[in-house]
Amino acid sequence: MERIVECVPNFSEGRRPEVIEKIIDSFRGKDGVKLLDYSSDKDHNRTVVTLVGEPEKVKEAVIQAVKVAVDEIDLRNHMGEHPRMGACDVIPFIPIKNYSIEEAVALSKEVGEAIGSLGIPVFLYERSATAAHRENLAAIRKGQFEGMAEKMKEDKWYSDFGPGVPHESFGTVAVGARMPLVAFNVNLNTPDVAIADAIAKKVRHIGGGLRYVKGMGVYLKDRNIAQVSMNLTDYTKTSIYRALETVRFEAKRYGVSVVGTEIIGLVPQQALIDSVEYYMGIENFSSAQILENKLSE
Amino acid sequence: MERIVECVPNFSEGRRPEVIEKIIDSFRGKDGVKLLDYSSDKDHNRTVVTLVGEPEKVKEAVIQAVKVAVDEIDLRNHMGEHPRMGACDVIPFIPIKNYSIEEAVALSKEVGEAIGSLGIPVFLYERSATAAHRENLAAIRKGQFEGMAEKMKEDKWYSDFGPGVPHESFGTVAVGARMPLVAFNVNLNTPDVAIADAIAKKVRHIGGGLRYVKGMGVYLKDRNIAQVSMNLTDYTKTSIYRALETVRFEAKRYGVSVVGTEIIGLVPQQALIDSVEYYMGIENFSSAQILENKLSE
Repeated sequence: MERIVECVPNFSEGRRPEVIEKIIDSFRGKDGVKLLDYSSDKDHNRTVVTLVGEPEKVKEAVIQAVKVAVDEIDLRNHMGEHPRMGACDVIPFIPIKNYSIEEAVALSKEVGEAIGSLGIPVFLYERSATAAHRENLAAIRKGQFEGMAEKMKEDKWYSDFGPGVPHESFGTVAVGARMPLVAFNVNLNTPDVAIADAIAKKVRHIGGGLRYVKGMGVYLKDRNIAQVSMNLTDYTKTSIYRALETVRFEAKRYGVSVVGTEIIGLVPQQALIDSVEYYMGIENFSSAQILENKLSE
Repeated sequence: MERIVECVPNFSEGRRPEVIEKIIDSFRGKDGVKLLDYSSDKDHNRTVVTLVGEPEKVKEAVIQAVKVAVDEIDLRNHMGEHPRMGACDVIPFIPIKNYSIEEAVALSKEVGEAIGSLGIPVFLYERSATAAHRENLAAIRKGQFEGMAEKMKEDKWYSDFGPGVPHESFGTVAVGARMPLVAFNVNLNTPDVAIADAIAKKVRHIGGGLRYVKGMGVYLKDRNIAQVSMNLTDYTKTSIYRALETVRFEAKRYGVSVVGTEIIGLVPQQALIDSVEYYMGIENFSSAQILENKLSE
């Protein structure tokens, strides 16, 4: 069975096309690796790459790209709007098919070890983190490239792999595994963003709500309505329908109703199947019954 | 873009392995043709084959298999429980991917013409039918092999291709296009099959119900409940959720509720997506947003 992992490495270079091309070449024409997308932002001075493929092949390609970043990018001369701590800043691995989150964690550690052996300190983050305070990327990256040497003197900011001090020109990198995100928004029949925000705070994890929901209220100017904008960080544990029905019952106290929903970007098929099974009460359904899945076997 | 058609030819041979293998060999090891399944039934004396692939390649393979049936099967010596009128009895084409029902109709006519040129009379049926009374396979096949010579003397049972009389040993064949069927059952909290049957009669097309629904009541002995058992004959026009919600509101007059549903066998992905869009009120969703679809591009 084909195993597929997704990887979305971020590189701190968005202005020099020749360097960007050298990085992207690490992912082109490789057996078992499919480059889905890459986009560079000059203001951010950053390039975000999306690739999928066989775990071992993706791993090799990413390590090669990191070597290009070591050679070509010097963060001592890097300016950009996006916070960054390394020439390759962050490398998330996302399990897609016939691949578990535990396997993605193991893969991220192999990649971390290989990068560490290049003399670059590595922070394992998200599901790969070795302590709770190291799960969140923003917390790890706080202080950025310029502040990292000082920050790493603290016991709690040890490197998981590589030296205990930043690489002179590369800096540091975060490597880890996470589930695919589902960006799910619920539109309300009110323009009052304060209501959407209050609902979001009830639905999301840190407000005592659903374990794998992040959320906030957003005002949609074009439509003059407010929206509960959510990220579902593990759809296998917190299904989309649970987020929707929780928004619905929290909205009742404000006399507000749901007028529609949106799924932004990509969504795993199973995330939709889980919800259709719930709403239609389908018994004993298997995704192997989906014609397209049978055809791609 | 890859175009995929499904074909489920039925052959009137379920007992002689060497003949069955010769037929199946028409579908094996062919570029652009994938043999999904075949099963032979000795009592029925019949073999049902499921294949998918590129329309032109599927067409060629099916014509080859019909030639094997001409050479190897003589219906004058054929006995079996399943009604049949030809050595290859029926050839339905089902559009699966990047292929419309109109294209499948055109393909069925090409296949019909090729079979007609072998001296075999062909009836176009289902969506390919040239008259309303010729849509239903059972109506065409009534009288079977033994009665077909007499039946074809009637004006309304002309052959669409080939001679106006049955082939001596092969008989006749029905060729046509239809949409994928979705077998969808709704379980009720009553053991009274009469209620399930009354609901089915309201929901189905011939009872003034939904255009693409066939249905009947069934008693599930193991669970001591009744079930509305349906076939959705065009899920693009009559979605699964419409069948479910119609059963639900018809059930109310009997004080009966829906306790669960079942999807039997294969279902096109879009049939499920249509329903999840309805229940969750998802705006502007495209199946291109499904991760697995993106990966298989």
